Amino acid sequence: MHILIIGAAGMVGRKLTDRLVKDKTLGGQEISALTLVDVVAPAKPAGFAGAVETITADLSAPGEAEKLAAKRPDTIFHLAAIVSGEAEADFDKGYRINLDGTRFLFEAIRQQGVQQRYAPRVVFTSSIAVFGAPFPDKIDDEFFSTPLTSYGTQKAIGELLLNDYSRKGFFDGIGIRLPTICVRPGKPNKAASGFFSNILREPLSGQEAVLPVSPEVRHWFASPRAAVGFLVHAATIDTARLGWRRNLSLPGLSATVGEEIEALRRVGGDKAVNLIRHEPDATIGKIVDGWARDFDASRAESLGFKAERSMDEIIRAHVEDELGGKIGG
Amino acid sequence: MHILIIGAAGMVGRKLTDRLVKDKTLGGQEISALTLVDVVAPAKPAGFAGAVETITADLSAPGEAEKLAAKRPDTIFHLAAIVSGEAEADFDKGYRINLDGTRFLFEAIRQQGVQQRYAPRVVFTSSIAVFGAPFPDKIDDEFFSTPLTSYGTQKAIGELLLNDYSRKGFFDGIGIRLPTICVRPGKPNKAASGFFSNILREPLSGQEAVLPVSPEVRHWFASPRAAVGFLVHAATIDTARLGWRRNLSLPGLSATVGEEIEALRRVGGDKAVNLIRHEPDATIGKIVDGWARDFDASRAESLGFKAERSMDEIIRAHVEDELGGKIGG
Repeated sequence: MHILIIGAAGMVGRKLTDRLVKDKTLGGQEISALTLVDVVAPAKPAGFAGAVETITADLSAPGEAEKLAAKRPDTIFHLAAIVSGEAEADFDKGYRINLDGTRFLFEAIRQQGVQQRYAPRVVFTSSIAVFGAPFPDKIDDEFFSTPLTSYGTQKAIGELLLNDYSRKGFFDGIGIRLPTICVRPGKPNKAASGFFSNILREPLSGQEAVLPVSPEVRHWFASPRAAVGFLVHAATIDTARLGWRRNLSLPGLSATVGEEIEALRRVGGDKAVNLIRHEPDATIGKIVDGWARDFDASRAESLGFKAERSMDEIIRAHVEDELGGKIGG
Repeated sequence: MHILIIGAAGMVGRKLTDRLVKDKTLGGQEISALTLVDVVAPAKPAGFAGAVETITADLSAPGEAEKLAAKRPDTIFHLAAIVSGEAEADFDKGYRINLDGTRFLFEAIRQQGVQQRYAPRVVFTSSIAVFGAPFPDKIDDEFFSTPLTSYGTQKAIGELLLNDYSRKGFFDGIGIRLPTICVRPGKPNKAASGFFSNILREPLSGQEAVLPVSPEVRHWFASPRAAVGFLVHAATIDTARLGWRRNLSLPGLSATVGEEIEALRRVGGDKAVNLIRHEPDATIGKIVDGWARDFDASRAESLGFKAERSMDEIIRAHVEDELGGKIGG
């Protein structure tokens, strides 16, 4: 089996690559080749017995999607996107990368099938940003898409295209709306959502972290480990069970910032919690107010997607996967 | 006020033009210029005192949208689309006309605003085809879009783009999902939905009509007169009342084919009803089974959109507007 990962250099892409290399198989089939693509050079994974090709390419540049589809991979993970803040600040770039790039890929796959049948599994990472406030208490899979960002709009359009191309049989697509990834590894960043991870990751390594919102703020989370599990499950599920509703909100944990902090206390003690400095930021507070807080993901759960059920589990996954089990830096 | 109608040669476009010419004003402002565009030459309306330009152009051809936006109309009606059956049969043409054409228009309007502020009202005709079965009994405005046709997909994408461009202030858009137009004037056509109109229009003119489905089939209707009223209302409404939910399902009448026939009997007598020949067609029956039957359009109603409340009203509108009040051919 030949697997193509577009967006392979990103955090989720790297973790997915590691998981596939470790598993050696996907859905019971041996992985013979990996093609890893991103706008920055993806790292060549160590310890993989099959063929690996790493490609530096921009999916939205003319001809690039065609070159990738011409390799006729069996499974395609399309993770590439520019993030919400950048898509909002640069309207043209957001539409070019997030919409045109996705459409070019889908169209290139379709054109590959003209001469000789070709209908790979396509796993598309969508986002809960396809939904816009005001929300019901729990957002179910039949709630409408009214994105309040260009990024959310581009993802919602990707979902519609994925559904139509799948319905026409051009490929076998599934779109998954990932929860906010927590604990996101790496350095603190300036994304409005960064603090959800920062207030756990930094204290667990003995560093200070700033909390810009109230402890009552509620949001929707899954660990990087769960995210990779979602991708693998989406690549192997029987898509007949989806009908023509190929996009779904994945399970996650609805938790408040206060619950994050209490879980941190249970895992890292008061010493860790005392490293959180509360500095309210009205701008971030206003952005976060517009974000979804809770989902009814029973459809995805019944399809076998699994996320963490407590913040303690999410923190433990981080300590195991990123800190080698060691707390406190 | 300068008004641009794209898709002006179609049935709704012609009726909208007639209404604007008769009204002489839109939202209290005098109409000084009409620009009428379609892929076939739109007719020059009689009796209009202002400037009229008729243009034969394909919105999806490079440069055409820019030329139209450069005229800086105050109000733009975007009615142009290829219909469901054709978009399903010709995938490329459907995406080119219905998606690219719409996106080119929106983008051309945005580019017009770069040098000098420009944010016209844009009225976009969407469709109830953005929804796909299985449906709730009544589809409300928060039900999700899972189109089962490429046409519905293209309209749903148009809605998302309209919302995002409006949110960013590039124009002041409103997307309206028209019910199935009934009684559609003209000759019987082969559209799967044609019979809903045929079984009223033909007998009212003394002609036979074929009914391919059971009298229990239920669907969602508004007259051409109501459709034009929707467009005028959408062009003049205070869009602040829409928030960032710029697309809405319009009011209509949920009626069965049997109710159509009984209304025909009340207006045209047994003589008219006896001209309907029941010839069940399993293919058409299956297509129609996937169509929406009823909507909760309370949001649009509270915004002042008005449709007929009985099939008798719909038939009377046809008799008055198309038959000069005369029944029986």
